[in-house]
Amino acid sequence: MRNSTRSQIDPFIVMDVMEAARRAEAAGRDIIHMEVGQPGTSAPEGARAALARTMATEPMGYTVALGLPALRARIAQLYGDWYNLDLNPERVVITPGSSGAFILAFTALFDAGDRVGIGAPGYPSYRQILRALDLVPVDIETAAENRLQPVPGDLQGQDLQGLLVASPANPSGTMLDRAALGGLIAAAEGQGAAFISDEIYHGIEYERRAVSALEITDDCYVINSFSKYFSMTGWRIGWMVVPEDHVRVIERLAQNLFICPPHVSQVAALAAMDCSEELEANMAVYRRNRALMLEGLPKAGFDRIAPPDGAFYVYADVSHLTQDSRAFAAEILEHAGVAVTPGLDFDPLRGAGTLRFSYARATADIEEGLTRLRQFMVSRGMARAQDI
Amino acid sequence: MRNSTRSQIDPFIVMDVMEAARRAEAAGRDIIHMEVGQPGTSAPEGARAALARTMATEPMGYTVALGLPALRARIAQLYGDWYNLDLNPERVVITPGSSGAFILAFTALFDAGDRVGIGAPGYPSYRQILRALDLVPVDIETAAENRLQPVPGDLQGQDLQGLLVASPANPSGTMLDRAALGGLIAAAEGQGAAFISDEIYHGIEYERRAVSALEITDDCYVINSFSKYFSMTGWRIGWMVVPEDHVRVIERLAQNLFICPPHVSQVAALAAMDCSEELEANMAVYRRNRALMLEGLPKAGFDRIAPPDGAFYVYADVSHLTQDSRAFAAEILEHAGVAVTPGLDFDPLRGAGTLRFSYARATADIEEGLTRLRQFMVSRGMARAQDI
Repeated sequence: MRNSTRSQIDPFIVMDVMEAARRAEAAGRDIIHMEVGQPGTSAPEGARAALARTMATEPMGYTVALGLPALRARIAQLYGDWYNLDLNPERVVITPGSSGAFILAFTALFDAGDRVGIGAPGYPSYRQILRALDLVPVDIETAAENRLQPVPGDLQGQDLQGLLVASPANPSGTMLDRAALGGLIAAAEGQGAAFISDEIYHGIEYERRAVSALEITDDCYVINSFSKYFSMTGWRIGWMVVPEDHVRVIERLAQNLFICPPHVSQVAALAAMDCSEELEANMAVYRRNRALMLEGLPKAGFDRIAPPDGAFYVYADVSHLTQDSRAFAAEILEHAGVAVTPGLDFDPLRGAGTLRFSYARATADIEEGLTRLRQFMVSRGMARAQDI
Repeated sequence: MRNSTRSQIDPFIVMDVMEAARRAEAAGRDIIHMEVGQPGTSAPEGARAALARTMATEPMGYTVALGLPALRARIAQLYGDWYNLDLNPERVVITPGSSGAFILAFTALFDAGDRVGIGAPGYPSYRQILRALDLVPVDIETAAENRLQPVPGDLQGQDLQGLLVASPANPSGTMLDRAALGGLIAAAEGQGAAFISDEIYHGIEYERRAVSALEITDDCYVINSFSKYFSMTGWRIGWMVVPEDHVRVIERLAQNLFICPPHVSQVAALAAMDCSEELEANMAVYRRNRALMLEGLPKAGFDRIAPPDGAFYVYADVSHLTQDSRAFAAEILEHAGVAVTPGLDFDPLRGAGTLRFSYARATADIEEGLTRLRQFMVSRGMARAQDI
């Protein structure tokens, strides 16, 4: 049977790593998982308790397409708490994960053939969702001196209909400060490009608060999710803030494309927002893990890294060690028993010389992983033994 | 800010009805809901219990993109139980509702501009999802003598790249028997069109089992869901069966477009499949409701109906009573206190002369609704008083 051209998207290379790790574990080996992009923790206890209560008494059929009004209002309140913004809850759209938000945003904003700028390195699915929707992803090769974030000059002559940025970014963890974000917003506006801000890692910040695009302009789409800070990846629940005059368009798209976000996940998400004690305990773990990584990775020979402002990743330049990050990651898995992600998913051009290390799991795993990485790198002559 | 052309899709007219019903209830009126397209029952008790257990012990992060292997295997087993088919579980793809399945199927099969045939009347979102993906919905105006299902002759000269059929259908509830389904499959193949079979109402059948397209060919996409027979609309969980050589394409699309279906809903769905006692109790209610509708609607003057083979709808031709089904539905809501759906969502051309009645709710509601409809129609001289 026929297949479309637009379905011919790239495989996820990290999936090969995960499959290799699974096989190694099935064969009895102990593997430390630094390849995963999700918390090891479950949804907050209060979120699960709220769902258990509601499940016992309500049928939990479809909600309205834009999501439960109480959840939309609670998210608007979060913008007050986090950014001191007075946000109209009508602008908040509950989505089936940030994934659903991207589908809604891209179809609401762009027609087939439109060009959308994305930073490289960046979240691999940006590129693939755009392609599946017959849009053209335009890679913006970011510079190390710009901490792997795009700058206005990168947009010149690109003829973009859209620009998508992420802060904190995946895989680098670097953030855009207010001036940098404002510059990009102005540059996008200057060429008539819609501005989309992926803020999925907001809340997971270490040195200072992340800046929301909504602090600068209302004329943008902001995408967020309960997956990361709220530790609810498997629940597939996120949200989007859109300009007031876009709400009706998004509502019609959401009614038809999704009917509604998962009702069960909406109930749990609403309760999760009041579980700050448990969520801040998770943050304390990330903070400790990050400190261990920033100390341990250089000692293991991975010293070309920018301290991540947020998220739970360290992106390392290993181009002086290898020009085949895929083979290098396979070797690390086999000999060190640590699963890491080759950079090729994030940056098709330069990712052959980069690796992403995740520190989202338990601290004991991070300590053990760093020890193994050091030993492996010393054995290869890529790190100095006296550092052990 | 800019909006795309493809986002300019039609509003759902039923939403106006639902909003009017909500306002009437807020004003203290008692409204019978015959407009809804979902069971009034919750997910089976066993499904909710399984989720409560799993939530307490597992983090429930992302699953693999194609879904939990145990759920895929259990669905394959269903094809043995229901259709006596030996289905390879690798062909089963778990999706975020049938909505997610449509997005995956349409992007996997069609490129921008491709023409996809859909029956009119039919599920409104087919048309809108196709448009949002830059595809061209081709309405096939079905005939009453074909029980509102397309026939091979309807496809001649249509130059379709795809054909989507539903049996039992929404809004008519009519089914395609093996010969009719086989004829459509052959006709689609004859013009190189991919065949997609929407089987979301399978399991809700009254006179005979519905036929799956998989009983006739492996060269098709079959879409189903836990929403209807398994009474799990709000959980947004469904599935799709695809040809073996399409699994990898779908996997890559699913990884990028959705990451995975909701983990919580997958756990509940797996347990729901073993809750046959509760599910058959729901069926007994639908069966009783259907008998009441087939007796009561003609007495209320709605006598131009085809007995529905499945689903929980009756689609009535009211073109002898009105040429404005929207105004007629509004009048019925205001004066009878019964919410019904005007046909315009299902058939933009002829729906001005049709109404859809849903009998998915409790039997007491159906009885009360029928009484109110009769009284209203008698008061308008559209039904005979002696029938009351």
